[in-house]
Amino acid sequence: MIESAKVTAASTPMGVVGLGLMGSSIVAALLIAGHPVQAIVPIPSDFDEARHRVARQLRLCEQAGLIDSVADFDERLQITEDYQTLAGCQVVIECVIEKLEVKKEVYQKITSVVTSDCIIGTNTSAIPISELQQYIMGPERFVGIHFAEPAYMTRFLEITCGRLTTDHYAQRIFSLAQGMGKEPTLLKKDIRGFITNRLMYAVYREIFHQLETGHATREDLDKAFRYDAGSWMTLMGIFRRMDYLGIEDFGKILPEVFSKLSNTHSVPQEMKEMVEKNARGIHNETGLYPYQKGEGKQWDLSFSQFNLEIHRLAAEFSEVKIKEQLSQ
Amino acid sequence: MIESAKVTAASTPMGVVGLGLMGSSIVAALLIAGHPVQAIVPIPSDFDEARHRVARQLRLCEQAGLIDSVADFDERLQITEDYQTLAGCQVVIECVIEKLEVKKEVYQKITSVVTSDCIIGTNTSAIPISELQQYIMGPERFVGIHFAEPAYMTRFLEITCGRLTTDHYAQRIFSLAQGMGKEPTLLKKDIRGFITNRLMYAVYREIFHQLETGHATREDLDKAFRYDAGSWMTLMGIFRRMDYLGIEDFGKILPEVFSKLSNTHSVPQEMKEMVEKNARGIHNETGLYPYQKGEGKQWDLSFSQFNLEIHRLAAEFSEVKIKEQLSQ
Repeated sequence: MIESAKVTAASTPMGVVGLGLMGSSIVAALLIAGHPVQAIVPIPSDFDEARHRVARQLRLCEQAGLIDSVADFDERLQITEDYQTLAGCQVVIECVIEKLEVKKEVYQKITSVVTSDCIIGTNTSAIPISELQQYIMGPERFVGIHFAEPAYMTRFLEITCGRLTTDHYAQRIFSLAQGMGKEPTLLKKDIRGFITNRLMYAVYREIFHQLETGHATREDLDKAFRYDAGSWMTLMGIFRRMDYLGIEDFGKILPEVFSKLSNTHSVPQEMKEMVEKNARGIHNETGLYPYQKGEGKQWDLSFSQFNLEIHRLAAEFSEVKIKEQLSQ
Repeated sequence: MIESAKVTAASTPMGVVGLGLMGSSIVAALLIAGHPVQAIVPIPSDFDEARHRVARQLRLCEQAGLIDSVADFDERLQITEDYQTLAGCQVVIECVIEKLEVKKEVYQKITSVVTSDCIIGTNTSAIPISELQQYIMGPERFVGIHFAEPAYMTRFLEITCGRLTTDHYAQRIFSLAQGMGKEPTLLKKDIRGFITNRLMYAVYREIFHQLETGHATREDLDKAFRYDAGSWMTLMGIFRRMDYLGIEDFGKILPEVFSKLSNTHSVPQEMKEMVEKNARGIHNETGLYPYQKGEGKQWDLSFSQFNLEIHRLAAEFSEVKIKEQLSQ
């Protein structure tokens, strides 16, 4: 059992609405952390597929050695279409598609069932928390709870307050996250794209720019980033990396390179084409890279295994441990 | 012994000029790959310190299990101030500070000694290859050879042609890199900041913007990036990650977030202050983060150990292996 798999003393009844890739992964994360989970399938026709997705995530957890047996969860997990089962939940996390109309309807159904101090979270990475918040009865208990996929394996958890969120609800989620073995961050101001998305979108903007200008191939761009940034990212983060490299040269190089970077606001042409042809990447094996039949699933499986290793490395090489070694 | 430690059948006499952090790390990488190395200390007063730096890198290789004993290299390594020892080298890599005047003088000394078809490489990440090239006698053999630190452990190697570079010299370095267990990229056009730096500088620009606007703390910014991007980076790269996430939402989110990203050309205030107070990060334990005495060395050691793990993971989870598993 790894750290995140510890069952917390005080388990909290939780709800998850929406059982896509992220929702089903979040269900697994909550179960592993010891919480009972009410999982709601918002679209009845999706019921069987949703069950399969959750079962698959749990099987992956089993294969990865995170849990002894999927059967252990039978008592604590209920998958249903019935919002009434959320009544006893202390936290409900919404994970439905990034469409305002859909989310509004879901919030209405949740709030009509739960108690007035039940925290309502959203895993959105696209719509501002302050915007969504206005559709919640009791907006002070609405919090952005942004997981990284797979939610049961990654240490990342970004908690974001909207304009009307009361701090103690965010703090409650922060504590729950720590109990789940996360390294949560708390953003008290609701900015577009939150923290990590903004950083990654800066990379996306620049990488498409390089591709479009023909400076490098897609394969080389990915290769360079994987083997350079990938070699230190988990250990260091960005500012620590600058300290590691010695800072000196940055003062000179920053303005020269900054002035060459893409500042575009428009969607890259290739991304437009992807949207037009309904590309879903590994999920329908149509994407930026070509895929053989079955390759999408293999990437998914490999990522789960890879992430188990990164999860272990992140614990082994934490800042706390580095400082501990110093005092020995 | 890991993959990169294989001794290639045909060893190539190599020279390295400049034995700072990168230079000494490159010396170790070349030795481990089986090449004899002439290491030049360009500043005589730096001689003892340079020897210590190289010895330290080799000790780290030994500790990491990359080599059996530092003593194995006694025959193949010479550290000297005398450029004449470069005479028999087939490749010489310049790793001196990022100052044009210094590099010009070094190139003059190298070219006056080596044969006319000796490849001259530079590890610069700041000055365009085409610009440096004009100070080389026989500019067609001048190539950007950009390692990531620690050079003996990372798979990254970015090869860049200048305007006048002949392709077969670049290809020669590409083959040598593959023989060293690298995953080299070849950039035939010399763009400002090369591939990986441009991508990282896009992140640097945005992360300082977030810090300056007070949206998030330094610690949270690093934490979010480490545990989110760090969880997939080595396995996926950027485009593959988009395929993994399913592409669908990007078309909608990209233009909204792009328009909020920093487009500044100017150096962040904090970076200016760092330069003013001569901050060298972990090297003088003055940087963006506070450091206790001895902590800089501990970070360095931890990174070496971490990188050994990432190096192993990158081999275990390569794209080739993922496709292999598919056909089984």
